[in-house]
Amino acid sequence: MKVIVKNGMIATESAVFSGDILIQDGVIRAVGQGFPAEDAEVVDAKGCYVLPGAVDAHTHMDLDVGIARAIDDFYSGTVAAACGGTTTIIDHMAFGPKDCSLWHQVEEYHRLADGKAVIDYAFHGVFQHVNDQILSEMKEIAEKEGITSFKIYLTYDYKLSDEDTFRVLKAAKEAGIVIAVHCENHGVIQYLRNEFVREGKLEAKYHPLSRPARAEAEAVNRMIHLAAMAGDAPLYIVHLSSKEGLAEVMQARRLHQKGLGVETCTQYLTLTDDLYEDPQEGLKAIMSPPLRKAEDGAALWQALADDQLDVVATDHCPFYFHKEKQYGADNFTKCPNGAPGVEERLGVMFSEGFMKGRISLPQLVRYCSANPAKMFGIYPKKGCIAPGADGDLVIIDPNVTHTMTKADIHGASDYSCYEGLELQGEIKTVMQRGSVIYRDHTFTGSKGAGQYLKRGRSVLAEGK
Amino acid sequence: MKVIVKNGMIATESAVFSGDILIQDGVIRAVGQGFPAEDAEVVDAKGCYVLPGAVDAHTHMDLDVGIARAIDDFYSGTVAAACGGTTTIIDHMAFGPKDCSLWHQVEEYHRLADGKAVIDYAFHGVFQHVNDQILSEMKEIAEKEGITSFKIYLTYDYKLSDEDTFRVLKAAKEAGIVIAVHCENHGVIQYLRNEFVREGKLEAKYHPLSRPARAEAEAVNRMIHLAAMAGDAPLYIVHLSSKEGLAEVMQARRLHQKGLGVETCTQYLTLTDDLYEDPQEGLKAIMSPPLRKAEDGAALWQALADDQLDVVATDHCPFYFHKEKQYGADNFTKCPNGAPGVEERLGVMFSEGFMKGRISLPQLVRYCSANPAKMFGIYPKKGCIAPGADGDLVIIDPNVTHTMTKADIHGASDYSCYEGLELQGEIKTVMQRGSVIYRDHTFTGSKGAGQYLKRGRSVLAEGK
Amino acid sequence: MKVIVKNGMIATESAVFSGDILIQDGVIRAVGQGFPAEDAEVVDAKGCYVLPGAVDAHTHMDLDVGIARAIDDFYSGTVAAACGGTTTIIDHMAFGPKDCSLWHQVEEYHRLADGKAVIDYAFHGVFQHVNDQILSEMKEIAEKEGITSFKIYLTYDYKLSDEDTFRVLKAAKEAGIVIAVHCENHGVIQYLRNEFVREGKLEAKYHPLSRPARAEAEAVNRMIHLAAMAGDAPLYIVHLSSKEGLAEVMQARRLHQKGLGVETCTQYLTLTDDLYEDPQEGLKAIMSPPLRKAEDGAALWQALADDQLDVVATDHCPFYFHKEKQYGADNFTKCPNGAPGVEERLGVMFSEGFMKGRISLPQLVRYCSANPAKMFGIYPKKGCIAPGADGDLVIIDPNVTHTMTKADIHGASDYSCYEGLELQGEIKTVMQRGSVIYRDHTFTGSKGAGQYLKRGRSVLAEGK
Amino acid sequence: MKVIVKNGMIATESAVFSGDILIQDGVIRAVGQGFPAEDAEVVDAKGCYVLPGAVDAHTHMDLDVGIARAIDDFYSGTVAAACGGTTTIIDHMAFGPKDCSLWHQVEEYHRLADGKAVIDYAFHGVFQHVNDQILSEMKEIAEKEGITSFKIYLTYDYKLSDEDTFRVLKAAKEAGIVIAVHCENHGVIQYLRNEFVREGKLEAKYHPLSRPARAEAEAVNRMIHLAAMAGDAPLYIVHLSSKEGLAEVMQARRLHQKGLGVETCTQYLTLTDDLYEDPQEGLKAIMSPPLRKAEDGAALWQALADDQLDVVATDHCPFYFHKEKQYGADNFTKCPNGAPGVEERLGVMFSEGFMKGRISLPQLVRYCSANPAKMFGIYPKKGCIAPGADGDLVIIDPNVTHTMTKADIHGASDYSCYEGLELQGEIKTVMQRGSVIYRDHTFTGSKGAGQYLKRGRSVLAEGK
Repeated sequence: MKVIVKNGMIATESAVFSGDILIQDGVIRAVGQGFPAEDAEVVDAKGCYVLPGAVDAHTHMDLDVGIARAIDDFYSGTVAAACGGTTTIIDHMAFGPKDCSLWHQVEEYHRLADGKAVIDYAFHGVFQHVNDQILSEMKEIAEKEGITSFKIYLTYDYKLSDEDTFRVLKAAKEAGIVIAVHCENHGVIQYLRNEFVREGKLEAKYHPLSRPARAEAEAVNRMIHLAAMAGDAPLYIVHLSSKEGLAEVMQARRLHQKGLGVETCTQYLTLTDDLYEDPQEGLKAIMSPPLRKAEDGAALWQALADDQLDVVATDHCPFYFHKEKQYGADNFTKCPNGAPGVEERLGVMFSEGFMKGRISLPQLVRYCSANPAKMFGIYPKKGCIAPGADGDLVIIDPNVTHTMTKADIHGASDYSCYEGLELQGEIKTVMQRGSVIYRDHTFTGSKGAGQYLKRGRSVLAEGK
Repeated sequence: MKVIVKNGMIATESAVFSGDILIQDGVIRAVGQGFPAEDAEVVDAKGCYVLPGAVDAHTHMDLDVGIARAIDDFYSGTVAAACGGTTTIIDHMAFGPKDCSLWHQVEEYHRLADGKAVIDYAFHGVFQHVNDQILSEMKEIAEKEGITSFKIYLTYDYKLSDEDTFRVLKAAKEAGIVIAVHCENHGVIQYLRNEFVREGKLEAKYHPLSRPARAEAEAVNRMIHLAAMAGDAPLYIVHLSSKEGLAEVMQARRLHQKGLGVETCTQYLTLTDDLYEDPQEGLKAIMSPPLRKAEDGAALWQALADDQLDVVATDHCPFYFHKEKQYGADNFTKCPNGAPGVEERLGVMFSEGFMKGRISLPQLVRYCSANPAKMFGIYPKKGCIAPGADGDLVIIDPNVTHTMTKADIHGASDYSCYEGLELQGEIKTVMQRGSVIYRDHTFTGSKGAGQYLKRGRSVLAEGK
Repeated sequence: MKVIVKNGMIATESAVFSGDILIQDGVIRAVGQGFPAEDAEVVDAKGCYVLPGAVDAHTHMDLDVGIARAIDDFYSGTVAAACGGTTTIIDHMAFGPKDCSLWHQVEEYHRLADGKAVIDYAFHGVFQHVNDQILSEMKEIAEKEGITSFKIYLTYDYKLSDEDTFRVLKAAKEAGIVIAVHCENHGVIQYLRNEFVREGKLEAKYHPLSRPARAEAEAVNRMIHLAAMAGDAPLYIVHLSSKEGLAEVMQARRLHQKGLGVETCTQYLTLTDDLYEDPQEGLKAIMSPPLRKAEDGAALWQALADDQLDVVATDHCPFYFHKEKQYGADNFTKCPNGAPGVEERLGVMFSEGFMKGRISLPQLVRYCSANPAKMFGIYPKKGCIAPGADGDLVIIDPNVTHTMTKADIHGASDYSCYEGLELQGEIKTVMQRGSVIYRDHTFTGSKGAGQYLKRGRSVLAEGK
Repeated sequence: MKVIVKNGMIATESAVFSGDILIQDGVIRAVGQGFPAEDAEVVDAKGCYVLPGAVDAHTHMDLDVGIARAIDDFYSGTVAAACGGTTTIIDHMAFGPKDCSLWHQVEEYHRLADGKAVIDYAFHGVFQHVNDQILSEMKEIAEKEGITSFKIYLTYDYKLSDEDTFRVLKAAKEAGIVIAVHCENHGVIQYLRNEFVREGKLEAKYHPLSRPARAEAEAVNRMIHLAAMAGDAPLYIVHLSSKEGLAEVMQARRLHQKGLGVETCTQYLTLTDDLYEDPQEGLKAIMSPPLRKAEDGAALWQALADDQLDVVATDHCPFYFHKEKQYGADNFTKCPNGAPGVEERLGVMFSEGFMKGRISLPQLVRYCSANPAKMFGIYPKKGCIAPGADGDLVIIDPNVTHTMTKADIHGASDYSCYEGLELQGEIKTVMQRGSVIYRDHTFTGSKGAGQYLKRGRSVLAEGK
């Protein structure tokens, strides 16, 4: 049970250096040179970068969205993840029956994931209503299940009121739990969607118009103030998409807000709302928040270069283009929200981010591996190349060029939003706890081999 | 019907110069020198400043707040105003019965004010609910009654949801109507008040703690984004009280937000939350938003010096200290919100603002007269010394010093928040449309002499 | 000696209203209605705006620049000014012989201007070296001659060192004198010019490249810090041209710098460095700082709309295109710097600024008349329509459209930078101290009728 | 030649984890667990943190300042450094004879340091004049000697003009060399010093008044603009001391300036200008820039917490209090500038920074070890714990408390500015290239064991 990854250029969150990695019983024992190779499996990484396995802090496997169910379950979805270099996901649990206990979903999600996931996985709790019972369940679940982050929504039917949000933040602060938030102003979106429906403006191109960037910015600022008033409650803003939203984050940074983590996603960095112009193709990219303008993406890249954002995730939530997505063919409001992405992330970020010089390799490691692990209490077990860390590694050959096609994708989806994109750099090998789970374009792991992760305390709860 | 105000130092919103003012039939005919004085009443202003009569854009005469009724009706309240140099008020109409037509309140307020007010007056509409009917009434009332501004609340029972707020802003933008807003985050306040009550923290000093400055800042930012998304709807933020709220305004200024007017009040500039320390005396200053810290006042003064705010008003809404205010003696949440101030404003601002060098005299005129007139469509009839303007003037002797006492106050209230304040400068004479209505510390006007003002379009609706 | 300007729309720095203006013995006696017209000359302004005569705070008449002499002397230059609605100039005195007394130039400039100027005029002093004697002359000249502003250069041969600059600022602060500054970093320009010459890059298009926007920004920031360290010495930045320079000004505004006035010029608002592309035509626009990009102009307009700049001037300094400008035909560094503009300013600003909705009419009046008068101690005598002010007026018909041609220009120059520009609005009549000096496209004043203005204290010296 | 550091909590620039470090032949071979200990020297770090040896990027050993010579030569100064956990210094070469070749100093400094230094060392070049010859020497020295950074001064006799500075920056940009700058405005300081001398204000307390914070801010901004105009030349600002200077840095960060590194020093974070109140004691702290206010220190700590600064160094330059410092007893301008600090830095930063919760341990490692190494081209050889890095380590026990006294200091100086400071945490052991050079309060290294470091390219030259 000894593996040596040899001759790679090891990329950590702070440095890139040549060396070998010795893994024993799934755990990194040493990083260095000259480890005796007898009785060890040797993986040669010559000419390649070796990164810590990527962590995707935002996925929705098997999600029931009411009108449809996300088509990747914990098996197909984690196979996709694994083939894309992601060795850990933190999935958002869906809602349960009205007024149900939070434990209901914990049980449901273990049922959905245990024995299926091929990579390690953890869950974010999700609030659908708030009362004393629910808040005490939150603490209980954090302690017993290591689910130390919970998500709330400021829009959709299950949005929380500001008062409930504040109540959650106070309780979370006390318990050292991170509150993740989907930030969009519900009222504005509600109004605009109704207007568009009334006016018969139903094509995909009205989707982004119904969710303006300022609706995000407003909600971001609101959450920042609420978290601060709750005593600097640990706050994690998911899928930031716009320069207006970013401006609010930057103001909070300037005012030294404590305990604030901010995530953006691959798609907001690399795709634009031009995709909605075609009424059919546009359905593929219907997600919330919607894709924005090129200048938004540029602002987000700059923020990554300036270390002002923390995480790049995916919000992976795929539906079949030929099936569920077509529910929106005549009315964008009927189209299930979401798109695939868990597999594409690391490759796209490596190519568009590092190879194009927008971010450094240590930054890539921070945004895709180390920071999500830190923000959600699984560091240094995950996201780290150091003794004691899990032997989760991705080996990337920077010299291979490739044009993304649908055929590259291992998940259930019948399309990728990145089809046609030129990628510089190819994922050669992916390892989890010392085992190779992807090699030569082939998934080599096994169903159910993923382990459930009880998570610890977030750095955000330390007032980072 | 000819009056000449002679020898004064005339202070307009942009300049101070010596000259005489000729008024005929209530209207300024000329500003200059050497007007033939025969058959004219002459008012000597030698050694004094002559300012346009002050406009108070934020009063609550005879307001029914449910648990009590504001003790100044349109007679006593406007007498107080007149004696303090204010010759025009724009009063906020109260709510009517649940679901009533907006016209109900228009009729009610004419009943309350007509024949009673001793100075000119206008009304702001107030929304208590929103639907198509109400929005069409808004436009109708704007056209027929010249009520071209409507107020909404983001807190209190009659707060509007974000969706209704957005709907109002869209309709207002279309009609060129200004939306005035009380900005505080309802959810946070609700939570904190409930907590304090549960914990038995009921003294006056918990009032400011239940309404943190960031609750204001959040709501200010929210309104700015909503107004922008509504197409730069004309937006007027009332009674800004905190440096945090100001920071949001300043950010909007830097981003060149159009159609944004911002008001603060005398009390937020000159009083602090130390007043709440004494459980009894503290009741006098229970108002919302609450008084803040000295540093908040300093920030607001600086913003006035930098021309970043637009209006200083009063939010005049008095209750008897010995009676209604005592409802809160054992529980601050039961204390009716509000305090007197319509009379004190101009004198306090002249002394604390101009005489202490914090703002210039033209700035004083802008904040107390010209700007409120412009923002609410009564300029240059009001707030202006120029041919064609109403002969509304205040004559102030800068050389008289005086310590404010309760005895100075002409309104119904049994206290003033400014008792004990040293004032440099004294209001000698107040004129409305050429008639002296205050002189030698005595009200000389007459009941019902005030005229109702049909207002025109705000400069905010011009995208200022 | 009585003149009534009737029926105009009077535009002051704060308001626009209908009325008549009564002028007696050259001074405005009253602004109003119904002045008895017998024995008065009546000027009808029906349908027109009546503005205070414009003040140009930055001209260089008859300037000796060493390699050439500006071709407008105080006669032709002020005729041009008069025909363009400018009734007052404040001219920068040139340098005298090395080490000469400051009085030398005062005498020289009286010789050049007295008896020639057709409009009122004043002078800025200019430093070419600094010592105790010179500083005491500065104070003497301020007292005796009313020259209460002095200019320094941070570039050119006669630039002052930082130490001398600081010394000047300290002395100026003490004496209540304004220091005007040409802000460009000398070292960078020197280096780049030498480089371009060495490399044979000698066409007009290298002129702007030799004076980058950041060279301006650096010097602006430096002056702001030096003035602050000198105890908030009154500082006036001339001809701000770039968004980078503006960013430094905005930062100082945010930090509430006291005593800071900032000027831009017509050309930086309306022309761009495209003009330098043609090697011949480009010579016409060789001036320092150079013309910038469209985005710089847009930023400057926005700053005017936001009241963040104070003055629009011209830096009028014309040379014959067919003669002196040709010195630079083969080498831009040999081309005398400067261009005409004193006549074009008000018309261009009225059309491009007010008629196009970028600034309001009161803002136009502030930037072209009131503010320069205030900043240089001649307000309210100049720049103001109020009793006691000089009867200097411009009457503009907003309904006349016209395309600017060379033939419109009354100065000596053989070109205008604005040829071909469509102007909305035409200057009909110009009056100085009650006398019509321009009417129906014709100069009607007389040589030597301009009066020398002893100036008083700047508002900047009051810590504005 | 095998050493194992066992059981420590290894602190790198990005993480803290338990593990052992295997060093062979002076170089870290592996970081991990379970290395066979036979034939290895074992250093037990149980309960202690193990950090990469500190790098001090700013020292002045044996510096000739004209009126005196710094009293630490390369032997005593590096002994002090070693005992304080610093295993590498980058010393600023002094000036040589007027107009001398840059090579002169390289030779001189090898003479001063070679065979004496007990830790590894490198040199910064220093410009005292600029011409083509000197600039070509700069490139030559960079290539041959690995001196890839050069310093310039904006004040003192040997200050460079802006033009020469710009010339240096252009050449440095081309060659990938970092320009380090002492930023203070010379003119202002010159003026103020002369004034104070003239007025007989000669006590130590006038020293800080003669070098205001804005004099630093001005120069910082100037350098930022010059570097940007030179094509984003790599720029390193030494010893930033004030919140005003920091504000300029922050503005550059917001505008995404490339290639900008900023250093502050221990003393600006932890000492204040109160020290100058006593005319005698004040001499100890006479250095330039001077100590500032508590609020400046707080702003600098906040900037470290926010990752907005890059390096904490010392500017170590000691003189005897009883001797050279007394030259300033009657006149602060005669006092040699400088103070000891090379030994105190790491302990003070560990205690005041990390133990007090102002910065994290990885931040401490970045500011004291990794970043200076990166900025000056010796990373990952220095400042890094990873295979291939030098075996330079510091072992700190966080549980020992100690009050700093003069007796703790191993350098030549007869005082420490930090006497009386309570320190939490004690340096137990220091290793260089695997050899213990300090243990149990005793220096165990040997004279001349330090190696000269030829440095490579800075990250600043990569446009970081």
